[in-house]
Amino acid sequence: MMRIVKYPQPNEWKQLLARAATANDNVLEKVKSILEEVKKNGDKALKRFAKKWDNAELTELQVTKEEMEEAVTLVSEELKEAIQQAAKNIEKFHSRQMFKEELVETTPGIVCWRKAVPIEKVGLYIPGGNAPLFSSLLMMGIPAIIAGCRRIVLCTPPTKEGKINPAILYTASLIGIAEIYKTGGAQAIAAMAFGTESIPAVNKIFGPGNNFVTAAKQLVQQYGVAIDMPAGPSEVLVLADETANAGFAAADLLSQAEHGADSQAILVTTEEELALQVQNELQQQLSNLSRKELATPSLSNSLIIITKNFAEAIELVNEYAPEHLIINCRFADVIAEKIVNAGSVFIGAYTPEAAGDYASGTNHVLPTNGFAKAYSGLSIESFVKKISFQKISAEGLKIISSTIITMAEAEGLDAHANAIKIRSNV
Amino acid sequence: MMRIVKYPQPNEWKQLLARAATANDNVLEKVKSILEEVKKNGDKALKRFAKKWDNAELTELQVTKEEMEEAVTLVSEELKEAIQQAAKNIEKFHSRQMFKEELVETTPGIVCWRKAVPIEKVGLYIPGGNAPLFSSLLMMGIPAIIAGCRRIVLCTPPTKEGKINPAILYTASLIGIAEIYKTGGAQAIAAMAFGTESIPAVNKIFGPGNNFVTAAKQLVQQYGVAIDMPAGPSEVLVLADETANAGFAAADLLSQAEHGADSQAILVTTEEELALQVQNELQQQLSNLSRKELATPSLSNSLIIITKNFAEAIELVNEYAPEHLIINCRFADVIAEKIVNAGSVFIGAYTPEAAGDYASGTNHVLPTNGFAKAYSGLSIESFVKKISFQKISAEGLKIISSTIITMAEAEGLDAHANAIKIRSNV
Repeated sequence: MMRIVKYPQPNEWKQLLARAATANDNVLEKVKSILEEVKKNGDKALKRFAKKWDNAELTELQVTKEEMEEAVTLVSEELKEAIQQAAKNIEKFHSRQMFKEELVETTPGIVCWRKAVPIEKVGLYIPGGNAPLFSSLLMMGIPAIIAGCRRIVLCTPPTKEGKINPAILYTASLIGIAEIYKTGGAQAIAAMAFGTESIPAVNKIFGPGNNFVTAAKQLVQQYGVAIDMPAGPSEVLVLADETANAGFAAADLLSQAEHGADSQAILVTTEEELALQVQNELQQQLSNLSRKELATPSLSNSLIIITKNFAEAIELVNEYAPEHLIINCRFADVIAEKIVNAGSVFIGAYTPEAAGDYASGTNHVLPTNGFAKAYSGLSIESFVKKISFQKISAEGLKIISSTIITMAEAEGLDAHANAIKIRSNV
Repeated sequence: MMRIVKYPQPNEWKQLLARAATANDNVLEKVKSILEEVKKNGDKALKRFAKKWDNAELTELQVTKEEMEEAVTLVSEELKEAIQQAAKNIEKFHSRQMFKEELVETTPGIVCWRKAVPIEKVGLYIPGGNAPLFSSLLMMGIPAIIAGCRRIVLCTPPTKEGKINPAILYTASLIGIAEIYKTGGAQAIAAMAFGTESIPAVNKIFGPGNNFVTAAKQLVQQYGVAIDMPAGPSEVLVLADETANAGFAAADLLSQAEHGADSQAILVTTEEELALQVQNELQQQLSNLSRKELATPSLSNSLIIITKNFAEAIELVNEYAPEHLIINCRFADVIAEKIVNAGSVFIGAYTPEAAGDYASGTNHVLPTNGFAKAYSGLSIESFVKKISFQKISAEGLKIISSTIITMAEAEGLDAHANAIKIRSNV
């Protein structure tokens, strides 16, 4: 069960809140050889890896139109409707994130602006495993489509029958993603980084994955490919006061814990009684879970922290910088104003993380592992780059020419000064 | 001199435009040991490195108030005024980049928004060497100040007298940066990543530097520190038609070439005659340059490419994705509309790169090495992260509860479904 820590001193927080170390040299070495193999042998390597790790005999890597059409018939109407409603909310929220250009005349005759331009080719990765993560496809695919990326490639590992989960194919066809390849793990990342006979090299790679995928994403950056963000196990911090329902808090902690043994769930409260109630609730709710085996070890890595007051609790949250923060308190809005480090914040008793994970409209691809101190979650901005433009008239240049020449010469850059002098006969 | 390549085939572009390879394992190994040393010995290591590489005997790492005040007296009035004008334009352009929050009600009772929050602690690095790059300090420091970063740390290597260039100190005090440390190279990056007795650990590190600095920035990311962007040698591509002044074009190419032997300057034109005139001009202008020794080898790595028409030229530009693009053509505006991969675009005959390098208002920290395909230059956005928030009423949650439950169960995540059920008694 979750360990209770009472009144830790601020100088103990860092150690207390430390995430489990991930990545190791052993994985990196293995992944390096996979990258090399895909770079050298392309499709052939991908098929070999599919046989080796997915136990699938593939003749074609790309999902066919027929497979797409078949998938639509295999998904229940209920699930289709749910995916459609979630897609609608995600689209509504993300479409408001489009960048509006604005011209700024910094000096008469000098006009500067920035323009958001879609990244041309993006690659999305969806891991395999027990859970077909079609929700992650919504979260990556919808902003990619809205941003206007010209080519959107999806890679995901096949089942041993060489198939892709129908819910994933249905989601792809719903949002308009048609280029899907049956390849997973580090080899999928390699394929999208270097390109193969079938799969194009892309400019930026997105998506969650295991240690191998994470290591591959880290490594391919050296070849000029961008990635969404550094990855780590998922985490939630629930901040609760005496008004919080212990059952709600326990359910929220468990919905994080079920992701796997390395997930972290933390409860921070000023109320010792609530802490004990939550522990009790955890025990009861856990016994009915299908993923009990995953959630149990995760909970034993997790923590209940009792702080002296809410000011301290907020400081602790900002120090931890949780991926997800649930504020289950009477004055949740006021507390939310004071949060400076978090991926996504869920305000009030009826705002569980699960809402944002699926259907409220916000993105669920968020910075973990303390990266929320410097990184943002996924948004339209993740699928565009902003190019700056400027246009200067001969008169405008005259106004700033002596400024430029003086600065360039002080930096010892004569040719920079010359580029101005030759235009203004200074 | 610059090599002329006439009518290369599109399938030859990739090879033709390839950047020189950088980073090597040898540097990485050396930098790793520097990082370890600073992590272990803190200030003591920094002082030892200052003695070893900067030939400076330091008792204190931090620049004192007295040194700041003295610096102001050592900078000429002319340079002060120039820096002030540049700062004003940079501030004007960047202050328009502030993010405006917008609440989106995706479903009745479900309100979502994003908020830009300054990254708390940022570290800026300014390299030493011959040129005191106070202009880069403007480009990093002004957006950091506007964004509202709470703690801004500047590291830059000392001279052998243990001093910092007065123009850098003047610029820092002008824009309001007071925490400056005398340390350079990979050890400065290590100090800002891990913290020492004097220097605080920061959340994100910005700034240019040599191979060692670049490698250090690459490595510290593994410890949870963010960096501005991957770095590479500076580059310019000049696109010119028959209306272009060959002297202007040559001056622009040289202002890139003088950065160093690994800089790349490329001229793309449809006009063979112009190409020859530019070569001629290069020869003449080069002979008067103080940095002739740096510019000459850079030019011999560089290229003049003659394309059959402008459609092809534009395609080639987008394939290369130059850090700086100067469009010196009659229909420069029309061409600018078609650029999808570039760091910063300079439109028309009187818009030299040097203007944006110093004083027009745009940022000069830009993606090199083809990274402009996926990365943006520095802006206010580089100094904030965006946190998403959501607040759901009990009624709002009811509307999407069956959607969430259906999706969670289809993904095999029962505890996610439970977090909804327990709130809605479904």
